[in-house]
Amino acid sequence: MPIEFTALSQIAGLADTLPTADAASQEGAQARQNQLTKPPGSLGKLEDIAIFMAGWQKTDRPAINTAQALVFAGNHGICDQGVNPFPQAVTAQMVMNFEAGGAAINQLCRANGADLTVVPLDLDIPTQDFTKAPAMTEAETLAALTTGAASVDTGADILLLGEMGIGNSTIAAAMACASFGGDPADWVGAGTGSDAEGMALKALVIADGIARHGTDDPIRTLANLGGRAQAAICGAVLAARAACIPVLLDGYICTAAVAPLAAANPALLDHCLVGHASAEPGHARLTKAMGKPPVLDFAMRLGEGTGAALALGIVKSALACHNGMATFAEAGVADG
Amino acid sequence: MPIEFTALSQIAGLADTLPTADAASQEGAQARQNQLTKPPGSLGKLEDIAIFMAGWQKTDRPAINTAQALVFAGNHGICDQGVNPFPQAVTAQMVMNFEAGGAAINQLCRANGADLTVVPLDLDIPTQDFTKAPAMTEAETLAALTTGAASVDTGADILLLGEMGIGNSTIAAAMACASFGGDPADWVGAGTGSDAEGMALKALVIADGIARHGTDDPIRTLANLGGRAQAAICGAVLAARAACIPVLLDGYICTAAVAPLAAANPALLDHCLVGHASAEPGHARLTKAMGKPPVLDFAMRLGEGTGAALALGIVKSALACHNGMATFAEAGVADG
Repeated sequence: MPIEFTALSQIAGLADTLPTADAASQEGAQARQNQLTKPPGSLGKLEDIAIFMAGWQKTDRPAINTAQALVFAGNHGICDQGVNPFPQAVTAQMVMNFEAGGAAINQLCRANGADLTVVPLDLDIPTQDFTKAPAMTEAETLAALTTGAASVDTGADILLLGEMGIGNSTIAAAMACASFGGDPADWVGAGTGSDAEGMALKALVIADGIARHGTDDPIRTLANLGGRAQAAICGAVLAARAACIPVLLDGYICTAAVAPLAAANPALLDHCLVGHASAEPGHARLTKAMGKPPVLDFAMRLGEGTGAALALGIVKSALACHNGMATFAEAGVADG
Repeated sequence: MPIEFTALSQIAGLADTLPTADAASQEGAQARQNQLTKPPGSLGKLEDIAIFMAGWQKTDRPAINTAQALVFAGNHGICDQGVNPFPQAVTAQMVMNFEAGGAAINQLCRANGADLTVVPLDLDIPTQDFTKAPAMTEAETLAALTTGAASVDTGADILLLGEMGIGNSTIAAAMACASFGGDPADWVGAGTGSDAEGMALKALVIADGIARHGTDDPIRTLANLGGRAQAAICGAVLAARAACIPVLLDGYICTAAVAPLAAANPALLDHCLVGHASAEPGHARLTKAMGKPPVLDFAMRLGEGTGAALALGIVKSALACHNGMATFAEAGVADG
């Protein structure tokens, strides 16, 4: 049944009630890997991925027939501070580009076999400027969490998450910094194209925001510094978990969107892999802090879910080997 | 027209007559990348791959309709020295597994859309033990080069290369060491499952082989220390170059197979990418020496062309973005 979000204070405790990976299925998948016609372990991380999928799909023969990609879009009041060289109108323009099939995520979903849905969240109502007020009220945050959760196809075999929104790289750095500490400058990068002055400005507004809102309550960071797309990503992650659907997160912004969940309880993200290592410098720091080594590294920094969609092809290849290969006994090959 | 191999002494000079990448097509592809609906450079290495493909396909809109995967198999006299824990019969057994569709390479070719052909080369006639004689005569080497070249589908849009052969990791370490110097132990790894004693033995026989045959003539290393599959890989690489077909090499053994070409003239491999970074420790050293950073790194060490097939999916995704994305003008998106 779908998760209902009634209060932010409820979220950290969800780890106690949500399902966990099935150890027996993982052991069955490991046993199968050891019987396939290859030296044990020689498929490297492809073997780890197959075993991960087995645990969440609760079968020693995991498969992907349906892959859902969700891209959440939102606008941010923090853009009033001039943190992004692009106008906020670009968010809606890019949503139209997604809907017309012209963006990178469209091509990568088609190439790797994912069904893409774009979910714009009140693009004409940016969140509040977090240097002046919480970005969202609790009610707004809960509404976005619910929209995210309701967007999940509970019949999918894997969920890919991405985002679009002018200002998102500032939001990501703010959420990562509030969730894991350190200097704001450590978490800031060029985003869509900020220069050194722009990056210094980002760090300054993040320091302002964190000074105003504090970091005592990890989940509250989502409301104070996040945005609707970030909350929707958290909602989708939790709904996927409730349905035992493994998740491929995209890059820096998407990983930072769930950083409050990681800070509250890392187990909330046990069903998630990070699809790729973003070229945004904060991402390496963040994935290390979260213990989530990315699947791929192509120095990409586009967002939209592009790194998750690229990683889907790898996961499918891993499962193709896992399910399609002959065992030593089946093939009549001597196993040493 | 196909390359004819009449003497080993002819090969180093082929770089003067073989085609080079088309700079105008690369520039056209770069210009297109800069107009697509994304911050310039934000697709990272996917952009580099699209531009690489443009240069060899000689069009600013490169595409992959047909991908050919060739797996060459051979047996080695060096196995008489006990360098491999598996019996040589496994080479033929694995060829049967390839032909029956049960190996990892079958699944990865199917998952990533490559047409697989397996080419066994005189499996019942192992090469000579290179500690006692040249592994192959010049005539045997030329015959294997020719077989490799003739196996290339000159209508393919990309060529994937792989290999199978008990003893191949010893051959790879020997070829890499002879081509780029250093201590044999620097180039030796566990292969299909050697322990420390087995690896020490590998290093010893490689030192013997290099002491016997010398390293003065890089191409002669292919005959002295290589094998039929290694020569066939070189022949296929050169035939692909003659037809302007870009190549995805597999891991350590496949990269080492063409190390003599790199040592003779690095330009002979300008049309080649290394598909993945093998877990065999010598591979990182070798790809660095050859200036060929691998496309992927999944800690795989299986061979067969599996890393090349996995990389094919990435190349296809790169071209899907390159060809399918809208430009800023087409999408009506403000470009900052």
